[in-house]
Amino acid sequence: MKIGLDVMGGDYAPDAIVEGAVDSLMHLSSADELVLIGDEPSILKKLEEMKIKPSCFKIVHTSQVIGMGDIPAKAYAQKPDSSIAVGYRMLKEGKIDGFCSAGNTGAMLVGATYTVGAIPGVLRPALATMLPAIDDRNAVILDVGLNIDCKPDVLLQYGMLGSIFAKYVLEVTNPRVRLLNIGEEESKGTPAVKAAYELMKEHPGINFEGNIEANGLFQETMADVIVCDGFVGNVILKQTEAFHHVYKLRNLQDAYFDRLDFESIGGTPIIGINANVVIGHGISRRKAIMNMILQTWAVVHVNLAQKIKEAI
Amino acid sequence: MKIGLDVMGGDYAPDAIVEGAVDSLMHLSSADELVLIGDEPSILKKLEEMKIKPSCFKIVHTSQVIGMGDIPAKAYAQKPDSSIAVGYRMLKEGKIDGFCSAGNTGAMLVGATYTVGAIPGVLRPALATMLPAIDDRNAVILDVGLNIDCKPDVLLQYGMLGSIFAKYVLEVTNPRVRLLNIGEEESKGTPAVKAAYELMKEHPGINFEGNIEANGLFQETMADVIVCDGFVGNVILKQTEAFHHVYKLRNLQDAYFDRLDFESIGGTPIIGINANVVIGHGISRRKAIMNMILQTWAVVHVNLAQKIKEAI
Repeated sequence: MKIGLDVMGGDYAPDAIVEGAVDSLMHLSSADELVLIGDEPSILKKLEEMKIKPSCFKIVHTSQVIGMGDIPAKAYAQKPDSSIAVGYRMLKEGKIDGFCSAGNTGAMLVGATYTVGAIPGVLRPALATMLPAIDDRNAVILDVGLNIDCKPDVLLQYGMLGSIFAKYVLEVTNPRVRLLNIGEEESKGTPAVKAAYELMKEHPGINFEGNIEANGLFQETMADVIVCDGFVGNVILKQTEAFHHVYKLRNLQDAYFDRLDFESIGGTPIIGINANVVIGHGISRRKAIMNMILQTWAVVHVNLAQKIKEAI
Repeated sequence: MKIGLDVMGGDYAPDAIVEGAVDSLMHLSSADELVLIGDEPSILKKLEEMKIKPSCFKIVHTSQVIGMGDIPAKAYAQKPDSSIAVGYRMLKEGKIDGFCSAGNTGAMLVGATYTVGAIPGVLRPALATMLPAIDDRNAVILDVGLNIDCKPDVLLQYGMLGSIFAKYVLEVTNPRVRLLNIGEEESKGTPAVKAAYELMKEHPGINFEGNIEANGLFQETMADVIVCDGFVGNVILKQTEAFHHVYKLRNLQDAYFDRLDFESIGGTPIIGINANVVIGHGISRRKAIMNMILQTWAVVHVNLAQKIKEAI
């Protein structure tokens, strides 16, 4: 499989990106190809420093860069030879099977929407991430920041998209779906959440187990798919980051808390578009980049986009 | 000062409530009076078991109990001799200066609204709780569950109510206020949050420092007052509970993580009503009850309700 990597995106690009790419090699098979998209001289210089043969990768030179502070839609349109724009074009033309970047998130979303496009029938694509449970499982939570105000039918569909993700990427049979709410009772929550409960309860396509309160997250009883709007999901994701940071500051050592590190998770797939795309954290360094690449591999390996196309 | 305590409310009532009351005595002065409101024979029996003189307290006998599963408004109306209804009546008549309960939250809110009432000028009372920062400070966050869908002017007023709380209860000079959002930029968030930002930015009565993302919570840089709607605040409160639970399960030992225990915080004041009222967690045991009483004492000590009345 061919995985495209934006070498120019992220606070520590291009060096940390190349380092992560090198580290990922030992986890990929010889049938896989990692395509480094970015400024070729910089890539070659870094590889030489690391004493790695350029032939381990395919390199696609680009002459422009979309910066972290650029206005997404404008930059995407005005920089057709940027690594992000080239990556999306290669994806659309079938030259790569998946694409990942720790660069400008807005520009990544612009490419997802305008170059690749939503799968017909998908109301609103979502960003999904993993929440580690205390018993070694992972749950998928969506949306974590793309749609901050979700209508009930969008939340219902997130239940379905999340179920497909859990089935193929997390390899869970008949994934259990729960709706994030401020109480377990059906009568709790905003009008949108209450209406979503009604829709999910009656939908034969998902294995709905009712509401989950935030104190049920991370526990053994946490379901496989957690559905919420992008505002709430983003708060949950970032509060997890806050606790992990405190854990590090306090010099604690624990295998579970280590799993909360975004560097171990690596990236956030965009679910519901016509291609397999993963977005990394802007502050990603070597380890996070490696895991972003492997996360992309996992999504490409099962061809998540195709599975969603077949199911919707 | 006279503090009323609902002895019949909570999953472990009445025994754990009496135990917590006894423990709180050593932290209260001889000028304070703790009023135990509930079934007198049960109270006397428990005190005898503990070898504590009943004269350490004032006991007000009640013959009815609002259960944890009772329908709040109905139970409050139909059980006028319940400990919650009697407590609110005593509060209204000035027989006690503050009231706290770990009982039926809905019934506590009914009493707050109908017997005591909102302070004129307060748009929507709120539930506030403390978030411990890594540098030993506490911030106050509101709302954490009363109003799940807040208009911009309500969020602005939460900034003001929270500032009064921080000034008098947390003893912070010129408390810094931040609006919980999914980005630091002014342009982020739901329409209500964006409009609240505009209002807060221009309001001379609060020391507004802009948006805070959830990964900024608990850190040294966290402000003194965090403003959000009740859905998001409730998620933050409960996710904190989730992490504390995981911390205990992993057998970690750390002074900071210990501070995240709801038992150390004790209760959630209702802010913006004509009396000082604190609500405890239904699962409160001895230690949590003691801290709920001391939290009530702190709020009564500065007469928070009066301070808000003067400021609004």
